[in-house]
Amino acid sequence: MAEKALAAIAMGAKQTDLREVDIPHLAPEAGLLKIEAVGVCGTDWSWYKGDLQEPQILGHHTVGHIAEIGKAASERWRVKEGDRVALEEYIPCGNCERCRAGEFRLCDFTDPWLGGIRYGATPITVPPSLWGGFSQYQYLHPNSVLHRVPDHVPAAEAALALPLSNGIEWVCLEGGQVVGSTVVIQGPGQQGLACVLAAMEAGAECVIVSGLSADVGRLELAERLGANHTVNIQSEDLKERVVESTGGKMADLVIDTASGGPCTVTSAIEVVRKRGTIILGGFKGQPIPEFFSDTLISKYLTVKGVRGHSYESVERALQIIASGKYLLDEMCTHQYALSEVDEALRTMGGEGAPEAIHTVVAPWQ
Amino acid sequence: MAEKALAAIAMGAKQTDLREVDIPHLAPEAGLLKIEAVGVCGTDWSWYKGDLQEPQILGHHTVGHIAEIGKAASERWRVKEGDRVALEEYIPCGNCERCRAGEFRLCDFTDPWLGGIRYGATPITVPPSLWGGFSQYQYLHPNSVLHRVPDHVPAAEAALALPLSNGIEWVCLEGGQVVGSTVVIQGPGQQGLACVLAAMEAGAECVIVSGLSADVGRLELAERLGANHTVNIQSEDLKERVVESTGGKMADLVIDTASGGPCTVTSAIEVVRKRGTIILGGFKGQPIPEFFSDTLISKYLTVKGVRGHSYESVERALQIIASGKYLLDEMCTHQYALSEVDEALRTMGGEGAPEAIHTVVAPWQ
Amino acid sequence: MAEKALAAIAMGAKQTDLREVDIPHLAPEAGLLKIEAVGVCGTDWSWYKGDLQEPQILGHHTVGHIAEIGKAASERWRVKEGDRVALEEYIPCGNCERCRAGEFRLCDFTDPWLGGIRYGATPITVPPSLWGGFSQYQYLHPNSVLHRVPDHVPAAEAALALPLSNGIEWVCLEGGQVVGSTVVIQGPGQQGLACVLAAMEAGAECVIVSGLSADVGRLELAERLGANHTVNIQSEDLKERVVESTGGKMADLVIDTASGGPCTVTSAIEVVRKRGTIILGGFKGQPIPEFFSDTLISKYLTVKGVRGHSYESVERALQIIASGKYLLDEMCTHQYALSEVDEALRTMGGEGAPEAIHTVVAPWQ
Amino acid sequence: MAEKALAAIAMGAKQTDLREVDIPHLAPEAGLLKIEAVGVCGTDWSWYKGDLQEPQILGHHTVGHIAEIGKAASERWRVKEGDRVALEEYIPCGNCERCRAGEFRLCDFTDPWLGGIRYGATPITVPPSLWGGFSQYQYLHPNSVLHRVPDHVPAAEAALALPLSNGIEWVCLEGGQVVGSTVVIQGPGQQGLACVLAAMEAGAECVIVSGLSADVGRLELAERLGANHTVNIQSEDLKERVVESTGGKMADLVIDTASGGPCTVTSAIEVVRKRGTIILGGFKGQPIPEFFSDTLISKYLTVKGVRGHSYESVERALQIIASGKYLLDEMCTHQYALSEVDEALRTMGGEGAPEAIHTVVAPWQ
Repeated sequence: MAEKALAAIAMGAKQTDLREVDIPHLAPEAGLLKIEAVGVCGTDWSWYKGDLQEPQILGHHTVGHIAEIGKAASERWRVKEGDRVALEEYIPCGNCERCRAGEFRLCDFTDPWLGGIRYGATPITVPPSLWGGFSQYQYLHPNSVLHRVPDHVPAAEAALALPLSNGIEWVCLEGGQVVGSTVVIQGPGQQGLACVLAAMEAGAECVIVSGLSADVGRLELAERLGANHTVNIQSEDLKERVVESTGGKMADLVIDTASGGPCTVTSAIEVVRKRGTIILGGFKGQPIPEFFSDTLISKYLTVKGVRGHSYESVERALQIIASGKYLLDEMCTHQYALSEVDEALRTMGGEGAPEAIHTVVAPWQ
Repeated sequence: MAEKALAAIAMGAKQTDLREVDIPHLAPEAGLLKIEAVGVCGTDWSWYKGDLQEPQILGHHTVGHIAEIGKAASERWRVKEGDRVALEEYIPCGNCERCRAGEFRLCDFTDPWLGGIRYGATPITVPPSLWGGFSQYQYLHPNSVLHRVPDHVPAAEAALALPLSNGIEWVCLEGGQVVGSTVVIQGPGQQGLACVLAAMEAGAECVIVSGLSADVGRLELAERLGANHTVNIQSEDLKERVVESTGGKMADLVIDTASGGPCTVTSAIEVVRKRGTIILGGFKGQPIPEFFSDTLISKYLTVKGVRGHSYESVERALQIIASGKYLLDEMCTHQYALSEVDEALRTMGGEGAPEAIHTVVAPWQ
Repeated sequence: MAEKALAAIAMGAKQTDLREVDIPHLAPEAGLLKIEAVGVCGTDWSWYKGDLQEPQILGHHTVGHIAEIGKAASERWRVKEGDRVALEEYIPCGNCERCRAGEFRLCDFTDPWLGGIRYGATPITVPPSLWGGFSQYQYLHPNSVLHRVPDHVPAAEAALALPLSNGIEWVCLEGGQVVGSTVVIQGPGQQGLACVLAAMEAGAECVIVSGLSADVGRLELAERLGANHTVNIQSEDLKERVVESTGGKMADLVIDTASGGPCTVTSAIEVVRKRGTIILGGFKGQPIPEFFSDTLISKYLTVKGVRGHSYESVERALQIIASGKYLLDEMCTHQYALSEVDEALRTMGGEGAPEAIHTVVAPWQ
Repeated sequence: MAEKALAAIAMGAKQTDLREVDIPHLAPEAGLLKIEAVGVCGTDWSWYKGDLQEPQILGHHTVGHIAEIGKAASERWRVKEGDRVALEEYIPCGNCERCRAGEFRLCDFTDPWLGGIRYGATPITVPPSLWGGFSQYQYLHPNSVLHRVPDHVPAAEAALALPLSNGIEWVCLEGGQVVGSTVVIQGPGQQGLACVLAAMEAGAECVIVSGLSADVGRLELAERLGANHTVNIQSEDLKERVVESTGGKMADLVIDTASGGPCTVTSAIEVVRKRGTIILGGFKGQPIPEFFSDTLISKYLTVKGVRGHSYESVERALQIIASGKYLLDEMCTHQYALSEVDEALRTMGGEGAPEAIHTVVAPWQ
């Protein structure tokens, strides 16, 4: 058994150190994951660029093999050493009203938004330190949520399970009946592209993706993945394009994954049809100027704030990935070694290699 | 058959004239209603105080008896002369996507918000002029939506059918599963009190109603009708009261019926629990300052803008009214003759008799 | 204007007569359709083979052009002479609780199951006789439900609008969230194949279609349309195939469109997973032997009886047809002239040309 | 700490022995409950009268105080020694698709219907034997599901939490929108009466309860609890009464809790209205003769098989019990000591004291 894990520890603003961390002795309810690939998430970048309070190992879109597992854990999770799994970022209490209702992502005691431990967001001072994916090994807490991953799936694609599950959750489970409808997706990043796939899966008749000039490559990829129209809102009018594409009927569903600024909330309300639905998934960090709640009433709109995914949506995401029916390898634009985690993070944050969509760290390569 | 109808015609800002209007010759698809009672609605006050473009007969919460009816109309509506009915304000096209989906209140061609004829909001220049309830007779357009009213129901209570149906629609049909939940209702006017009744019908465990100092009488009535707590937000902190009443769990559902200003949108977001629902039913006429869409995401909220009612909710409202199980006569605070329509309107608008809840005009008394 | 329409009138068991019928003078609320193509439905065969009480013109999957239209009808339907439309079979009252709720197919006064007029099922003794599609012209009753059809769609494919809308209604609107799920469709006729298309549209991961030896050609077409597996239940065990295809998880959704006998109700219960859904759309004409309601409880199943379509599902069906993304021309296996209606009906009933899927009568060819 | 628990062990058909059982040493994840009251369930009677394979302690509607608790269990469940709780019968795996979806009652590995341990249904040969409520102490397995119970609630009423939660689950969560509707409940036992309360909570306009001649006392209690009509189907025609009570509209929702025989499935289909819902909660142990699935189609019905309750419904049941707004003490008809468990069971099974509704065993009295 391994005794040490090499890990990239985020120490402060935009700096990680490669260090050896002791691998803990495992309780019967716990396990250890040998990491194969970890997708870099926008949240990692937020932490990395300055939100960090204490050193921690970032990375939480993790795929790997069970390296070691306690007897109770093996029975509970129904996995054994060598099995390949994708890990959710949540470590839910399992016992609160939200957990009992199947919404463990909103666990009253470990909701990421409220604090509490979770993968990729817990200081190394909390034993056994190995809470993140930018590492050779990751600790499997007894409350971990695991999903089986078929062997034939490339690791980098498997690491898309969580972002794609968000797309499934937001578009298919929260967005209602999509068959035959027009869906506008604002923001063509990893999350927005996942929504494109989800909308196509769910039978959208017309998918329109909007972004900025800096997103030109991402918008092109959106079209290759199957989007019907893309709009650079710095050179075109989104509303006009939606009017034109729908014969004036406007969008049935608008998904806002953009985090650039508040204007996409306003445009979402403009391009959605009467009785339509808006899903807000992108944090703005600032209030929305000139927000008229009256328009929600006059257009009889439903607006839902969403974040994260259910167990079911991760299962469905893995099914879609395993089916091979989409060009997911085109989304996997960048891959880095453990020693290159800083570059991987800067790439995701737009300060490294350009045109990144899905950036992966592969600790053993 | 009557040849003339005496009607109170709104001529301009805060002024009605009592005039005789010719009763039209009826097509086989149309009818004529002899009006028994008309509830005064906040919308009437909006028109009356200055939104009027052309003279029109206001009033659209109408109850009456069929005075005359064409053969085709009688077959279609399955009513005959002498039958007692309540009338919806909508005159839907019956043929658009919204009408075909059972949401005729959002009819793509006659949605009140978009224009198009409807009762209480159509100029007298559109033949046959008798489009409003402040009159002895009202024209029944072929596309009218009628509901049977049992004889034993007092006319003033029957005229509560539309406001109460809004309560049913917003709380029960839009608000989701209410059994055992805490419901906060902002604004204790006719609409807010209707929501109180609907919330109790639907099995709310705790109903909290908020209002202003000017609403003291209305808040007291809310308690007599069954609300568990009332809050004067000018002297008490709503959030503290909700924390206290729910042991910190906060409200499952918040209904905003207030039209006074934007602050109730902000407080709705404050007092609703994580994963809760907010129903917005009160127009503000101004933007919401410091509106953070991020809170919708972090609390995983659903916000719905709503207006009006479905056919089903009017039927259920009439059932509840007919059952006699609530003290609806206490809501019926003021009644006026046709010659007193100006006073009736000023009372609804807060410029006449104080403490009005449900104000009724009875044209034949 | 035409004064006579040539029509194939069903006179008694398996016999139609070609006769001229007077075209009526139209009221302002009515219209006249010049028929382009009419799909033959299983219901037509039921009438034709012996359920007929009085002579009538069969055929109700009608596509055509507006030949004549009254002023009121033109305003109401928003169509004019020359416009191309598909017609629903229903002639709903528009005023009952079901109609007002958007479920006019279950109209309390004209529900086909209860009697009342509808297209393709009304005797010629009811004026103006032209109630069916096997005719040059069809009367447009004021309560008709019309849908616009784009010019580029072949008429025979447009005549698939109603069967395909049933698929949309049953699979997508009644069947719940389909993305990523396994759907078993029993019966590979026109209706079952429509369900195959609907299941693929809605993102089913795996579609399994079952039929009899006589259905071999239909099962092959199901595969060409995109079904993952087909099962001839006379030579293979459906349950074993579902176990195998799903790794023992069984089907999330089972749609029974078969009308051959009661055994598909029993097999539906066998192949559905715990907490799954069964949609029953095929009449059996006999009780189900050994029906254990206890299995519904132990497997916690939902079983829905369904028939027909909503306005929305016809709109979505026409969108899918117009998109050209499925090989619908392969479904259009047979086309007949008005003089060949008997052969068209026998073909649909399995007594004429073999391997029929979608059989069309084109009255002007 | 106690070292022995006195327990009534079911040894074979209709026979229990009072014995001392060793109290186990507890792991940190486990606990021990000092039992206050246990409701006797129909399932207990089924086991007791002969379905028993091995000796076991029956009883699973348990209320008590935490006698001892491990550190990890205390943290996980957020309870401490002395806290009063109600226990669910399920001991779910917490990790399967059903558990992760909030439906742990259908846990793929411990679903009562499939086998696996659960309270009141696990042999004493499985350590530590104390799996049932007819005992002074009950073992709290790490996967137990607990609910806090306020001190002011009488123990016998608190022991109604599970049956009442079934009522909430079946009527409110599975039955859809109940406000203003007519609900027929077949079977006036403990489960049927729980449905009566749930229907009233949810705003049913009319509640009709049916039973047999032997149920006269139960039917009377149903009326005292608030049911509008009761029907003895051995002397009255249920369908006629429903026609009469609803003016021919028939029932919106029918709940079948009867286990006497298959006829209530047939009558449910007869008395439900078109587009209505039937909830099947009573096992029959035999097929339904002359079951016409065609009627499900012609009436466009939804039929759901249901069993058990969600976490949420138990919470709501406890809220309703704690509110004191129903005459629940009238439901608590019989109470027995631990030494009288045989009599308690025979009473529930209809072979002991007559007219039992809610029979309770209080081990320390």
